[in-house]
Parts: sequence; C-alpha cells; structure tokens
Amino acid sequence: MNKFLTPSEVRQLCRTEDITTPTPGLAAGYNQANLVILPHAVAFDFLLFCHRNPKACPVLDVTEVGNPEPRLVAPNADLRTDLPRYRIFRHGELIQEVTHIKDLWQDDFVGFLIGCSFSFESAMLAANIPVRHIEENKNVPMYKTNISCQPAGIFSGSLVVSMRPLPASDAIRAIQITSRFPKAHGAPVHWGNPEEIGITNINQPDFGDAITINPGEIPLFWACGVTPQVALLQAKPEIAITHSPGHMFITDIKDEDLTNW
Amino acid sequence: MNKFLTPSEVRQLCRTEDITTPTPGLAAGYNQANLVILPHAVAFDFLLFCHRNPKACPVLDVTEVGNPEPRLVAPNADLRTDLPRYRIFRHGELIQEVTHIKDLWQDDFVGFLIGCSFSFESAMLAANIPVRHIEENKNVPMYKTNISCQPAGIFSGSLVVSMRPLPASDAIRAIQITSRFPKAHGAPVHWGNPEEIGITNINQPDFGDAITINPGEIPLFWACGVTPQVALLQAKPEIAITHSPGHMFITDIKDEDLTNW
Repeated sequence: MNKFLTPSEVRQLCRTEDITTPTPGLAAGYNQANLVILPHAVAFDFLLFCHRNPKACPVLDVTEVGNPEPRLVAPNADLRTDLPRYRIFRHGELIQEVTHIKDLWQDDFVGFLIGCSFSFESAMLAANIPVRHIEENKNVPMYKTNISCQPAGIFSGSLVVSMRPLPASDAIRAIQITSRFPKAHGAPVHWGNPEEIGITNINQPDFGDAITINPGEIPLFWACGVTPQVALLQAKPEIAITHSPGHMFITDIKDEDLTNW
Repeated sequence: MNKFLTPSEVRQLCRTEDITTPTPGLAAGYNQANLVILPHAVAFDFLLFCHRNPKACPVLDVTEVGNPEPRLVAPNADLRTDLPRYRIFRHGELIQEVTHIKDLWQDDFVGFLIGCSFSFESAMLAANIPVRHIEENKNVPMYKTNISCQPAGIFSGSLVVSMRPLPASDAIRAIQITSRFPKAHGAPVHWGNPEEIGITNINQPDFGDAITINPGEIPLFWACGVTPQVALLQAKPEIAITHSPGHMFITDIKDEDLTNW
C-alpha cells in the first residue's frame, strides 16, 4: 500500500514521525534523493565539487541560504522534518542519528539534494534488463576506486562506484538506457576488468553486499552517490547533516522527468 | 591562418596584447566561452543561478577562489590576461573596457566560464543544416522573452533566446544535433509562434541583427548566453568583470568533447 502514497503524503508521515524507516518502495515512480546540509561558508566549494563530478554528484536541487524548502523539486516540503532519519557529523565524525533536525537548523544552512540510482534501475527493469542485487534482495555492491574526483576547495576524494553484472547485449542496452538519466548518475564509468579501476576483489565490496556474477556476464560500474559522502567526511567541516543510508528524501519529480535534463 | 592557431597560441597572443579583436574564427574546432568574474561573496548565488538555468548558463569551468587558472578546460591559462578584451561593471554599470585585468584582480575573485552556441552551430553546418545569420554574415538575433529564469539568491531575470529559422525537416534534425550539446545551450526551448514566449516583433531583435525568414521556415529558439549577463546587471554586484561581446575565452576543449557531458 505504501507504494501508492504520494510524495507529499510520505513527507507528511515523516514530519509526524509516523515513517522513520527506509524509503525504497515508497511513492513508486518518484525520484528519491540523497541529502547533504552544510553551512554557507563551504557551500560554494561543495556545489563546485558536485559540478565538477556530475556523474557521482548529480545535483537535483539546492536550497536558498537558511531556507529549508527545496522549492524546485518539492514545493512546501521542509528538509528539517521530511526525511525519516538524519545523521549529524561534526568535524567529519558521526555523532548522532535523529528523526528531525528542527533544533539543529542554522540560518546559514544550505541543503543539497543529489540524485540516486533508483530511477535508472526502474528504467532497466522496465526494459527487461535484470538487476542482480534486486533479484538477490541485497544492497548494491559498492567499491572505492583509484579514480580521483576533481577536487574543489576543501572537498576531494576517490570515486566510489556501484556494480551491476550483465551479458554483453544487455550491457549495451543498459548503457543506452542509463545515458538518458544524467541526473541519476548517467552512463557507466567502466566496463569489464575491475582491476583497471583499482578494485582488487570484486567479491569484497567496500559498501553494500557481494552479489553473484554468472559466467559470461560483464561487470558494469556506475558512479555512486556515496562519493560525495566520502569527500564530505574527509573535508571534516564543522557541521554536516545527511540522510541516514536508505532513508531518502522523496521529491515530486517523476523518474521519467529526470531524463535528458 | 588564424583559424589554425592552437588555443594556447591564441591565449598567448592575447596575453601579449597582439590579439585585441573578436575571437570568432580563431582556433577553429575549439570551444569558446563566455566569462563572468565575481567576488566569492556572491559566487555561490551565481553558481546556483547557473545550475538552476542550465540551458541558458551551461557552466564549463569555475576557478578556485582567488586563482585565475581555469584548470579543467585550459591548464596554465590566466583569466586576467588571456582574453582580448574585458568589461568592468560596478554596481551593474559598465565603467570601463580594458585588454587585461591584472591590476583589478582580487584575492576573492571567482571566474566562471560558460558555454556558447558556436559549438552546436559548427555541428549543424557539418550536417548541411544552414545557419541563416552566418549565411547573411550577421550576428545571431536575440530576444528577451516572458519566460522567467529560476532565481537564485540575488540573481534573477528573464530568459534571453537566440533564433535560427529552418524548414521542418531540418528543424527536427537541428533538435537532435543540438540535444547532443548540453554544455552549449542544448536543445531549443521553443519552436514556432514567437508571441507564445513574449516576442512581439521577430524582425526587431533586442540584441544582434534581424535576419531573413523564408516562407515555410519555422523559427527555432535556443536559450542564450546573454541571459546570465542580464541577470548580472540586474543584481548589481559591487564588482563584476565579463568578456567584451565577441571577445571570448578559447578553451582547450574540442567542440565534439562537449557532447553528452
């Protein structure tokens, strides 16, 4: 039943703390977003980091300084209350997990909403292209690579990628399909030999779960939204607030509206 | 002969003030960019304005605070000297036109390089699609519209568009071709009746020159790089520096590298 909730109904239930659980499956067909909140003093650096690394950090919306409403993707929403769960970082250390940040909000805060891969996975499934971690009911496997992000101000780090294995013909179709979603990480960044991008053991992901790769399947690697999180922790800003993993912000943007932005 | 200069040769000749004239035709095949320089205090607002209006303001590169080198698109170049001519604005008023800004550079300056339509026009010509203002040796006609840009902080304004008339079959091809260049204004924003976007007289452009529209041709309208200039003048920042019209920055990026960024 929850999949038939509208985005604003989900956000309202987060606001009243009736939803404090992960969001996959909620408001099906609508784009879910990663959240990063930072003080204005480092917001230019972070927006520039996202701009320079658009495959890893596809920005969907950025709030005005001090205003918690993401006006473009969810008018009347409130980033202080409308996610199920938040993480508070001080100087790069996780210090607290909370269900709202009303008491922590500052006049100089800027909120960044960053696209995630759910949208292109829906499009792959709609095209009858299997998505292994969904088939196996696992989290997508994610790996640190030896590919450096373009640094910007205080932010730098390595690219993190997610992996989906496919036979060659499906892999080509997957490249076509995901290329249409530049705001959801877009086309893959690598195809084939994991060692070429610094992954030594495909069966030991750095984040998420290991999955089955069948004979004849090629691993395809996409830039991953964990990349900005890693850059954030390395930069150690005085304060940063993010969504808790899996507890995303649900926008009013339909997945299909994300194509060819 | 000048079309065979490399981008770095052109920039060097600007640096020595041996080139102080408009840049169209120089270093053929390489992307030319609009320049905007602003103090860091308003740089976040401007980057956000560009991000929210990507068709009008496709950002190619942004410099680190205080550093005049656009490292990603032209390593070792210097935005203080490497354009033929600059305009200095104080509080939104044009006060001076100069051939370098070495004496005006500030530690808090941020440079923005924004894509222009030259790249997609080359691609249209390569596909045998005529570009009327080039045929007639005129500037492209540009018009203010009734389409509001998404505001960001101190920056707001109306969308400015450029117009190229084409028969229907060429117009469809032109949409396909320019869609491949999101960093050079991308696909058109309007097709057909100019009044629908607030243009009352197609023969009286607000900027550039009027051009011939033959019977059976449809006017196609693309978002135009004059849009951020208009927003800049309205915002009246304490200081802003831009290229002089037609006197662009030449990057090391080939036009074709701009496709599907």
